[in-house]
Amino acid sequence: MLVLMKPDATAEQIESVKEKVRVMGFTPHGIPGAQRVAVGITGNRGPIEADLFIGMPGVADALRVSQPFKLVSRDVKPEDTVVDVGGIRVGGPQVVVMAGPCSVESEKQLLQAAEAVRAAGASFLRGGAYKPRTSPYEFQGLREDGLKLLAKARQETGLRIVTEVKDTETAELVAQYADVLQIGARNMQNFSLLERAGELGKPVLLKRGLSATVKELLMAAEYIASRGNYQVILCERGIRTFETATRNTVDINAIPVLQSLTHLPVLLDPSHGIGIRQHVPAIARAGVAAGADGLIVEVHPRPEEALSDGFQSLAPPEFASLMKQVEQIAHAVGRGVAQPAAR
Amino acid sequence: MLVLMKPDATAEQIESVKEKVRVMGFTPHGIPGAQRVAVGITGNRGPIEADLFIGMPGVADALRVSQPFKLVSRDVKPEDTVVDVGGIRVGGPQVVVMAGPCSVESEKQLLQAAEAVRAAGASFLRGGAYKPRTSPYEFQGLREDGLKLLAKARQETGLRIVTEVKDTETAELVAQYADVLQIGARNMQNFSLLERAGELGKPVLLKRGLSATVKELLMAAEYIASRGNYQVILCERGIRTFETATRNTVDINAIPVLQSLTHLPVLLDPSHGIGIRQHVPAIARAGVAAGADGLIVEVHPRPEEALSDGFQSLAPPEFASLMKQVEQIAHAVGRGVAQPAAR
Amino acid sequence: MLVLMKPDATAEQIESVKEKVRVMGFTPHGIPGAQRVAVGITGNRGPIEADLFIGMPGVADALRVSQPFKLVSRDVKPEDTVVDVGGIRVGGPQVVVMAGPCSVESEKQLLQAAEAVRAAGASFLRGGAYKPRTSPYEFQGLREDGLKLLAKARQETGLRIVTEVKDTETAELVAQYADVLQIGARNMQNFSLLERAGELGKPVLLKRGLSATVKELLMAAEYIASRGNYQVILCERGIRTFETATRNTVDINAIPVLQSLTHLPVLLDPSHGIGIRQHVPAIARAGVAAGADGLIVEVHPRPEEALSDGFQSLAPPEFASLMKQVEQIAHAVGRGVAQPAAR
Amino acid sequence: MLVLMKPDATAEQIESVKEKVRVMGFTPHGIPGAQRVAVGITGNRGPIEADLFIGMPGVADALRVSQPFKLVSRDVKPEDTVVDVGGIRVGGPQVVVMAGPCSVESEKQLLQAAEAVRAAGASFLRGGAYKPRTSPYEFQGLREDGLKLLAKARQETGLRIVTEVKDTETAELVAQYADVLQIGARNMQNFSLLERAGELGKPVLLKRGLSATVKELLMAAEYIASRGNYQVILCERGIRTFETATRNTVDINAIPVLQSLTHLPVLLDPSHGIGIRQHVPAIARAGVAAGADGLIVEVHPRPEEALSDGFQSLAPPEFASLMKQVEQIAHAVGRGVAQPAAR
Repeated sequence: MLVLMKPDATAEQIESVKEKVRVMGFTPHGIPGAQRVAVGITGNRGPIEADLFIGMPGVADALRVSQPFKLVSRDVKPEDTVVDVGGIRVGGPQVVVMAGPCSVESEKQLLQAAEAVRAAGASFLRGGAYKPRTSPYEFQGLREDGLKLLAKARQETGLRIVTEVKDTETAELVAQYADVLQIGARNMQNFSLLERAGELGKPVLLKRGLSATVKELLMAAEYIASRGNYQVILCERGIRTFETATRNTVDINAIPVLQSLTHLPVLLDPSHGIGIRQHVPAIARAGVAAGADGLIVEVHPRPEEALSDGFQSLAPPEFASLMKQVEQIAHAVGRGVAQPAAR
Repeated sequence: MLVLMKPDATAEQIESVKEKVRVMGFTPHGIPGAQRVAVGITGNRGPIEADLFIGMPGVADALRVSQPFKLVSRDVKPEDTVVDVGGIRVGGPQVVVMAGPCSVESEKQLLQAAEAVRAAGASFLRGGAYKPRTSPYEFQGLREDGLKLLAKARQETGLRIVTEVKDTETAELVAQYADVLQIGARNMQNFSLLERAGELGKPVLLKRGLSATVKELLMAAEYIASRGNYQVILCERGIRTFETATRNTVDINAIPVLQSLTHLPVLLDPSHGIGIRQHVPAIARAGVAAGADGLIVEVHPRPEEALSDGFQSLAPPEFASLMKQVEQIAHAVGRGVAQPAAR
Repeated sequence: MLVLMKPDATAEQIESVKEKVRVMGFTPHGIPGAQRVAVGITGNRGPIEADLFIGMPGVADALRVSQPFKLVSRDVKPEDTVVDVGGIRVGGPQVVVMAGPCSVESEKQLLQAAEAVRAAGASFLRGGAYKPRTSPYEFQGLREDGLKLLAKARQETGLRIVTEVKDTETAELVAQYADVLQIGARNMQNFSLLERAGELGKPVLLKRGLSATVKELLMAAEYIASRGNYQVILCERGIRTFETATRNTVDINAIPVLQSLTHLPVLLDPSHGIGIRQHVPAIARAGVAAGADGLIVEVHPRPEEALSDGFQSLAPPEFASLMKQVEQIAHAVGRGVAQPAAR
Repeated sequence: MLVLMKPDATAEQIESVKEKVRVMGFTPHGIPGAQRVAVGITGNRGPIEADLFIGMPGVADALRVSQPFKLVSRDVKPEDTVVDVGGIRVGGPQVVVMAGPCSVESEKQLLQAAEAVRAAGASFLRGGAYKPRTSPYEFQGLREDGLKLLAKARQETGLRIVTEVKDTETAELVAQYADVLQIGARNMQNFSLLERAGELGKPVLLKRGLSATVKELLMAAEYIASRGNYQVILCERGIRTFETATRNTVDINAIPVLQSLTHLPVLLDPSHGIGIRQHVPAIARAGVAAGADGLIVEVHPRPEEALSDGFQSLAPPEFASLMKQVEQIAHAVGRGVAQPAAR
């Protein structure tokens, strides 16, 4: 159920609607829009009578929402959500590029990567401190030491930090260091983690699961939003299909489809998407051309020495070349590329 | 690396090998076999020289293990693992049937289900107290109240209890009530949860992820085993494919393939596997015929009133009919069906 | 549109309905059932008014058919279709086993295979004379010489012959030699070939395409039936998924789902389905347990010397062992195994 | 086996190599390159000794080719193949756009479409006269009448014609009218049709099958090339995955992967690829950004009246807008858009 307020509804009228929802035992969510406010209702298991709200002062209408997601639906909020990360705006007119190594390996490696991606024009540094790995015998990350290195890199470069939160136990610690919490593909339906991310209040970069449909991705985002955190950035990173020539199959269709269904920003990860270094730029260009609001790209100072994902990481000169191509495509679709913040 | 001890190796000789592994900074795992003991080594990132162990007293050989899983590999331990759950043996000659409702909904519902499935010959009661749901607006389970009802049902019927553990926060609580901890398909690569399940020491029923390969399932099992818990039961429950006529596609091939690769027991969940009530018996029969060590089946006293998965739950008479068919197929492949424990 | 005749409708009344359909410019299909005859109408692009038929003498009802397939639908003909191939009945109470080499390679190879599979209890000999191959550089079959060898094997053993028809050019020639025309997975949507097979009037074994849905398989069968040939046998042979541990993924679900949607017999090909020799028997057992009306299995006198598919072909002793298992499963589901015809 | 000639090898030396191949019972294929000629050998089933050719006058080297495709491999011919269709060059610096209705329905419809797509900048007219349809009850095309209308449209507009060839029976007739023969996704492994297309000598547009891997697409192209026709244009048109939000899943990765493996031109069909009219332009842009050599787009004068695929066909103003976007993306990647030929 979604209660649409009139454009001139007062704060008291909105609060009255919310209070009524609370009295009914459910949870109200104020969803601000350009024209007017809506109040979403969650927690109900059956339908709610529209008449309970229609007729209240300031209420324009009360609608049943047909999609299983509502807070993240564009039906409910037609305007694009812009996630502001310390002045870098994700989901606005500028395409945002996040780049860095798969894993934080050492101070030298991370700072070299950070300087290189900043010089090329990236505004975010990515890097994993806690690494979910398919095998228990693979490198699992530097953990808190890795987080400290990320914070140091932010201090030195002004880059915003995005890093993965692997589980609920370490979520709060990661949130102390990161600007954006990344939830990885294998955790997209780790509902306890989604709820925890919803409570922490930090922006979340939510990656699509390997076999998740577009609608399941939106319902995962709804979990975060239903805990009051609407700062969610979606990320297509390739799905699992029968094709073995590439690591995953980039579902380029998902970019326009998601943008028609939700107001949230949509990024593309071309590195995991194709998993072959030489072809990452082609996929990055395709993503921006299809309308993606940004990219997240693996860059390592010396890919051949990387502890993980070296085969799909770009060396700094390759990334610099990719950024020039991204700028050209961004201009061709009427956008620019967000600049890194001052140091 | 796997160190194979001679058949007549002494306990001291085995301990010497383990101590050497510890000194090297790695973790030794004693893997008992019918003929002799092996010591698996985990924690190393590069290869280990075999010569460090060959020549030690009691050591027969030291082998590099080519598969990314080793503790769960049949190469390492050729004999079947039998998981003994209070006298009910999973993985032995008898086929084990677990049955019950998708969700614990009420005392009456659960006890009716328990009595019905016991009467038909099931030896385990299944039922979810913590429910991971795709949408945040669906029924999430009775939580600890549900666990208490499961314990009550065990007390009244003697059935063993299998129930899902949804996250690390509630894992210890669930382990206090359950005989077997189920890890669901969406959590198959929730590595923190796998590790926690490895530490709790209870038998684990690990369901295959929707798009997990057979090898990824074995690596997930390896996470549990690498924490010292070798009581892992694998479960095929259908994978995600292009076919939309059924809820999932049962990968019946996975049963013999898993059994050739691992010594762990392998079950089939025909209910999620096909997702259509009338066709569950055909798939259950196929699973036993293919060699599955057991089944886990959704049964509800009144499927049409179920809060979740009613469309794929059997009513008690349908389940009783299925059990007769299962017995006939089990006999045809030279096995029987495990009987429920006394009350 | 389907015109249901009354149980006591006369031949003249049925003919009147058909004539009316012809006058309208469409094609009538008489579909005999146990209780009464139905007349299916094809060739119309828009809906037809039921009133045009209701009220005619002998007509019980006229129904719009909602599925895109109708002649092959169980809605239209509830009784099982039994395809009689020279006295061997496919789709009746007995499970039918077809076996033989992937390709006809030589007289000696084929006759050895034929004797071996007959001795073990198979009633059909399979073997490819025209081989569709993924690469133009692979063995393409002995062509007409292969057909002649198949005919010779029939003469010597009394086995019925099933062999693949690769294209419309050679279809008539193949039909002169074969008892059943096989249409392979890659040709399942070769509509010109389907139509030709419909016109030739011989029984057709139609294999499911690698990525064909159950409904698309039924529509392919409908192409054959719409040309007047209702002797169609369907065959599940594995679909293409992300799993690479096996050649294909057997969709065991398809067996009961197809049997609920259509009256046509349904076979399973466990050899292509899993593609690993040692696991073929497990899948064969699963198929019969799930209710398949038969099996088609690759058997070669010396699998290690086969020109194609040796890795999934059984040697004669393995096949003899499989047949014993199949008999036991068939009995467990209340069926037997069809015996080969006398020589 | 591939025999590489020296850059200064004479025509006689090349002919001697070919003659030796013929004497051995195999087929030689002269493959001209920018620097030197290579002679591919097909028809052999086992390996050929390199020494049989090394040492012959003019021969530089003789190589075993590891890929199952060789004539279409970039290893064998590093330079791009440009298919010249009456002066319109597919695979050169200019991006080529083919557009028109799914089916030829009437003279008026086709000529309106042709004029509209030409005005917007397309250089080819597409339109189906023979339509392979999943159901036998759907519109099957105007057949030869449709071909005649296509020829008329060419005469009036100067557009090159691409139309589907559905089977071997009608292939020669279609080749009399068409400039490029399209082989559809469902026929990608109709090997008899591929061979026939190889013999007809006309350029072929080969669409990727719904579940074909990139390597299988190349082997299908190899079938055509092995009959002496190297004028093959490949086309990605979406593959079948678990995602149901779109008609197919465009495998955008396939574009750079194919271009690294083969010298043949690669197009994208965004219309079938996503199957949703409003999103076709985003996918078209992505294709050109990823490096596609062209697009094939469904355009209908009145999509809402189309007999097939109206839901994914663009109206003329939408197509004109798409062409402007395509030009901008083409310029951003250093290319232009091929202009239509003069009338």
